[in-house]
Amino acid sequence: MSKPFAEMTKEELEALCAQLNQEYKEAKSKGLALNMARGKPSPAQLDMGMDFLNVINSESDMIASDNSDTRNYGVIDGIPEAKKLMADIMETSPENVIVCGNASLNIMYDTFSRAFTHGLLGNTPWCKLDKVKFLCPAPGYDRHFAICQHFGVEMITIPMTSSGPDMDLVEDWVSKDSAVKGIWCVPKYSNPQGITYSEETVKRFAALKPAAPDFRIFWDNAYAIHHLYEEESRQDKIPDIISECEKAGNSDMVFEFCSTSKVTFAGAGISAIASSKANLDDMRKSMTVQTIGYDKINQLRHVRYFKDINGIRMHMMKHAALLRPKFEACEEVLSKELSGTGIATWTVPNGGYFISLDVMPGCAKRVVALCKEAGVTLTGAGATYPYKNDPKDSNIRIAPSYPSPDEMAQATDLLVLCVKLAAVEQLLSV
Amino acid sequence: MSKPFAEMTKEELEALCAQLNQEYKEAKSKGLALNMARGKPSPAQLDMGMDFLNVINSESDMIASDNSDTRNYGVIDGIPEAKKLMADIMETSPENVIVCGNASLNIMYDTFSRAFTHGLLGNTPWCKLDKVKFLCPAPGYDRHFAICQHFGVEMITIPMTSSGPDMDLVEDWVSKDSAVKGIWCVPKYSNPQGITYSEETVKRFAALKPAAPDFRIFWDNAYAIHHLYEEESRQDKIPDIISECEKAGNSDMVFEFCSTSKVTFAGAGISAIASSKANLDDMRKSMTVQTIGYDKINQLRHVRYFKDINGIRMHMMKHAALLRPKFEACEEVLSKELSGTGIATWTVPNGGYFISLDVMPGCAKRVVALCKEAGVTLTGAGATYPYKNDPKDSNIRIAPSYPSPDEMAQATDLLVLCVKLAAVEQLLSV
Repeated sequence: MSKPFAEMTKEELEALCAQLNQEYKEAKSKGLALNMARGKPSPAQLDMGMDFLNVINSESDMIASDNSDTRNYGVIDGIPEAKKLMADIMETSPENVIVCGNASLNIMYDTFSRAFTHGLLGNTPWCKLDKVKFLCPAPGYDRHFAICQHFGVEMITIPMTSSGPDMDLVEDWVSKDSAVKGIWCVPKYSNPQGITYSEETVKRFAALKPAAPDFRIFWDNAYAIHHLYEEESRQDKIPDIISECEKAGNSDMVFEFCSTSKVTFAGAGISAIASSKANLDDMRKSMTVQTIGYDKINQLRHVRYFKDINGIRMHMMKHAALLRPKFEACEEVLSKELSGTGIATWTVPNGGYFISLDVMPGCAKRVVALCKEAGVTLTGAGATYPYKNDPKDSNIRIAPSYPSPDEMAQATDLLVLCVKLAAVEQLLSV
Repeated sequence: MSKPFAEMTKEELEALCAQLNQEYKEAKSKGLALNMARGKPSPAQLDMGMDFLNVINSESDMIASDNSDTRNYGVIDGIPEAKKLMADIMETSPENVIVCGNASLNIMYDTFSRAFTHGLLGNTPWCKLDKVKFLCPAPGYDRHFAICQHFGVEMITIPMTSSGPDMDLVEDWVSKDSAVKGIWCVPKYSNPQGITYSEETVKRFAALKPAAPDFRIFWDNAYAIHHLYEEESRQDKIPDIISECEKAGNSDMVFEFCSTSKVTFAGAGISAIASSKANLDDMRKSMTVQTIGYDKINQLRHVRYFKDINGIRMHMMKHAALLRPKFEACEEVLSKELSGTGIATWTVPNGGYFISLDVMPGCAKRVVALCKEAGVTLTGAGATYPYKNDPKDSNIRIAPSYPSPDEMAQATDLLVLCVKLAAVEQLLSV
């Protein structure tokens, strides 16, 4: 437990600065080459799922439960058993689900693009509007923001709280401004904080009264089953947004997304969208022009391997056993080295792929640069904010999934050193 | 060899009509249930490729030649060995290729959609234009026309000749009208006639002088390697459009597409686009927002199974052995029953998935309806024309791939009966 940096005298800070510089010089000489930038599964985690590749072979029955031959064209919705599996992940009903290709990001982009070219449920295509705005809870997922930016959509930053986005602000924007057409949400184990929305937050989302008839919640349930702990008490839960929206008379207000990219293989998983019948029918009008059907053999592979949601849950516990030590190694170093310093706060999530670290305002870019120089790559500072612009220059996303626990400890050792060094530099420069 | 129907007296026609009606009644009583509507592979054809599903298993080396782990995120272009394989199918270079998901139709739609939302190479997005027109050689592929219709693009029908689209008309439209933004082409074994563009046609395409800077040829090389015969002399060839366009100073004028949907499994194949570096770079700007990468494990599966283009060619000869008897069964009946009648013409292609039948003008809809009533489903009459409107009501697409040769003969027996019956009905009604 260190003394708060803010309470240090100039002399103490100067002494500390010299010491930290020395430590940094030594750290640099180690020639580290570690990457905590992206939420990529580690090779060890990928090795765990190799049996998945044996489950469909030349001896397999390739006929799905609807009698369709998974090797042939057709079945735009996905095979029924895959719809059921993906529905169970999202805790909704199969009739609300369409199973798509290998990535939920692709469905999100396509849904966005379709709103631009064709409009949603008969509303004006967004490309014909002067201005389209999206609410972006931040820190958030950089690829969500990239979609907005690519389509020229104005992003409005909504601060995150420990129970989800600031709902007072969300309600205000959504009800008053018909140019606000959507909001990005990662409701469970959010990227990057690992925050799970409270029941109240979810219900307030479902009860929104949008000024725009084509306002949509983009509910990216990317980490629905990505718990880090076996104990029920440490497995976060959220109400099913689809049925909450129905109950609130807002059936068509939400698009929910999920995938098995971080369940089976990143890039070779399957993805799904869940929504109301009206929204899915609207989507099918474009989908049947866009494709004859997605990869049903890979859908079958998933269903035959996992059997059902319990099979997936068991598999995810194996992942948790591998991921947990990495998160804990990181948290241990953060806690040991930064507690009491008053220069940083961080999240301790129950699941997901990230830890969010807030360093002293004005220091995030410097910390990332210092780490980079000493061989540890972090997500670019600012990436977790719209336009890559963190107004406080404070947030850093840590991705513990790829390195080993040892590497994670090493990388975090360097990270905390850089966090301190940047803070001291700043305090001395005032 | 029948007498030409047009030379028959009213009495002869009436007698024939009575006889055909009797035959039709008998045919109906057989309770046929056959489908010649879509170019779907048959179960027997799909069975031939089942070993493909064993080639990647838990023992496999999952690392691609660029050292990327095919089980993890990334590699937007596709793994190098898959780029090479798809380049060889299109007879272009790997650097001109991006490997995508499971369907080339999806790439075509996305390319179209991107032109609408973002424009091509800095040109005005098509959604901002008052009018976008596309040239549609017809008879042609209904799903191409469906994309145009979905985006509200005006379709201009270009008649097909035995050497490809009527190039005088194409050149005229493309050079004079800057609203003409593209043309759909199936240059080899065209859908539905099985026509292969002549060398002159391809060179005239490459040498077009478009009024619109963002005019693009959508070169759907769907049947590049789908020959029906082993003899070199019966394997159609076309010049490589990419290098022809380069030579003509039109590097950026073409998007070429292909897939393995009819090589491995329909829906579980891989697809690719080929174009100039400038076009591909332009596309990557959107693609990196749309996805982190396509299914690299399925790419690896293709490469490990076929090894190289020769492996694919050998595999396609097995398909040819299965498909050829179906085409020949159909052609035999057409020839035996319709030659000399003057009421129909048809194509005898060297490859592809279709035979194109032109019946007496005004009779196609009636023929399809008569067949349907007697248990044989054909592609809807008109489907091969923009807006499903065949001005002569004459063209019918026959898809021999799904039924067995016996079924094909049975179905064609019924088809020719209906072609005769519709013709006699019409001749008697004048």
